[in-house]
Amino acid sequence: MAQALRLGIAGLGTVGSAVVQMIGEEQAALTARCGRPIEVVAICARSRNKKRGADLRGLRWVSDPVRLAADREIDVFVELMGGAGDPARAAVKAALKAGKSVVTANKALLAKHGVDLAAAAENSGVALNFEAAVGGAIPIIKTLREGLAGNSLARIYGILNGTCNYILTRMEQEKRSYADCLAEAQRLGYAEADPTFDVEGHDTAQKLAILASLAFGTKVDQSAVYVEGISSIAPEDLEWADELGYRVKLLGVALRTEKGIEQRVHPTMVPKVSPIAQVMGVINAMTIDADAIAPITLVGPGAGGMATASAVVSDIADIARGIRLAPFGRPVAQL
Amino acid sequence: MAQALRLGIAGLGTVGSAVVQMIGEEQAALTARCGRPIEVVAICARSRNKKRGADLRGLRWVSDPVRLAADREIDVFVELMGGAGDPARAAVKAALKAGKSVVTANKALLAKHGVDLAAAAENSGVALNFEAAVGGAIPIIKTLREGLAGNSLARIYGILNGTCNYILTRMEQEKRSYADCLAEAQRLGYAEADPTFDVEGHDTAQKLAILASLAFGTKVDQSAVYVEGISSIAPEDLEWADELGYRVKLLGVALRTEKGIEQRVHPTMVPKVSPIAQVMGVINAMTIDADAIAPITLVGPGAGGMATASAVVSDIADIARGIRLAPFGRPVAQL
Repeated sequence: MAQALRLGIAGLGTVGSAVVQMIGEEQAALTARCGRPIEVVAICARSRNKKRGADLRGLRWVSDPVRLAADREIDVFVELMGGAGDPARAAVKAALKAGKSVVTANKALLAKHGVDLAAAAENSGVALNFEAAVGGAIPIIKTLREGLAGNSLARIYGILNGTCNYILTRMEQEKRSYADCLAEAQRLGYAEADPTFDVEGHDTAQKLAILASLAFGTKVDQSAVYVEGISSIAPEDLEWADELGYRVKLLGVALRTEKGIEQRVHPTMVPKVSPIAQVMGVINAMTIDADAIAPITLVGPGAGGMATASAVVSDIADIARGIRLAPFGRPVAQL
Repeated sequence: MAQALRLGIAGLGTVGSAVVQMIGEEQAALTARCGRPIEVVAICARSRNKKRGADLRGLRWVSDPVRLAADREIDVFVELMGGAGDPARAAVKAALKAGKSVVTANKALLAKHGVDLAAAAENSGVALNFEAAVGGAIPIIKTLREGLAGNSLARIYGILNGTCNYILTRMEQEKRSYADCLAEAQRLGYAEADPTFDVEGHDTAQKLAILASLAFGTKVDQSAVYVEGISSIAPEDLEWADELGYRVKLLGVALRTEKGIEQRVHPTMVPKVSPIAQVMGVINAMTIDADAIAPITLVGPGAGGMATASAVVSDIADIARGIRLAPFGRPVAQL
């Protein structure tokens, strides 16, 4: 049996705890699939004594994520703290510099510093995997980077924010106001107390910037995305769309045009018969139009502890199996 | 720049020609994505002088696929001849024995001899990739083998035969008979002159056997699949289903039960609101129920030259990038 792949995990919120839990529960199957065990050896979080779902006994506690990132006893640094700035950024940079592969779910970090971090990963010859940054458990990044490697893509579009899709679904189904459905989403834990980041489209924009880079080989750049959210949508808008055979969805859209790659986020009328129109509630979906083939649509859970953990663990399994690709599907020099 | 990955392609029908065309058209992008060029160096087909879509000038012609498979100048043998017997089987075995990685779209070969061939690939330390054997361009195999590597799966089910779904779709939409819609599918080239293999569910069964092995770690075994086709479905069946809120689809279903893995193919009533019920015409779809997360559904083109070529080329790109996994996601010894 090959040597165990040793993980250091920074961030033990919903996702981090779910990752520890999933690796524990799937230990035998993961070892079989990867040909070697996967072991969490050290952890780090803001509060040491908080009660968490996962069993953390026997795991070494490191108080500083940047120190954990370069720890001699880990092979992979799993960054689940979030945020585009430090300590997440400093820790990921430290890990890559120390020759550790990195798995992260941090879309903000990648949307802002993706190119730099990818270059650092290439310099060190390690992996930088981020399937969990977009679309939760749906293997969107693997599909773009590997599954459609032979295709020129014309357009990608999708529902990348479950909060917005939940609100729009409820507004349509119950003919209730935006404010009403937002309050409901907040009660159910689908929306934050300050919902701006989700409902104004910024979350979708960060995710779209990452996907556009994978799909079209451009430098990831959140500021290149036009953004409009759903807060000005009224029930009448949805009723009028309905009469015309459409639904309104908040889409992230990136497409190839004669002037270059266009990236935008805005409420969009989609034909009711399209796969994307069927996506209701907190579910995510992405449609990929390649030049040579009919569209491919992927649908699934876009958020939540276990769904995000599923993507994190698949990224870890790839590393355990020896898979290492350029983070954005091609070397930074070619972006 | 690393050395080119050199391909020998056996079989130049619709799919083989599309593979040559796609590799030609995407040459620069493929080289960028894989870090090395991908080159077709030798080909083999039944008839040398047939007119084909792709430009075959400059490619070395080898008359015997088994000889091509072990050719010293190729790194990867691409088997697109089809059929569970020789020459496909002999050629794939020869390639694996000679230490060549193999990419194939041959579901019949894998459903019958998958375990033996996987063992041969492992013995030689080469890849045996077969994304194109199931679901055309949809990355179903990559999703099961890699994208959901951290999950225990409870059930997979899907529409894996476009011919049957086309016939059922037309019967439902136009309230026409099975025979009528089959004849239409034959006129349009969606069904063979002898449609038995498709309409009686055998095509779906072969694909399901492959997917079940990936999903549940069982030995691939077509004879373990219960099979019932669509030839006895009447328009009234579809109308009754409709009144109850259902559509009838030919599904391949594999699930974990207390008695082991159950595999079956039969017409199934699916709730109209489910993603799989929205899939109309020749499109394929697969839903994956994992224990810990909400279902994931993948929808896309399941057949046709370019759709199948898309999967073949992505398998080739994986090899060019140095990705090599146990063919069924875990070593044969563990199946």
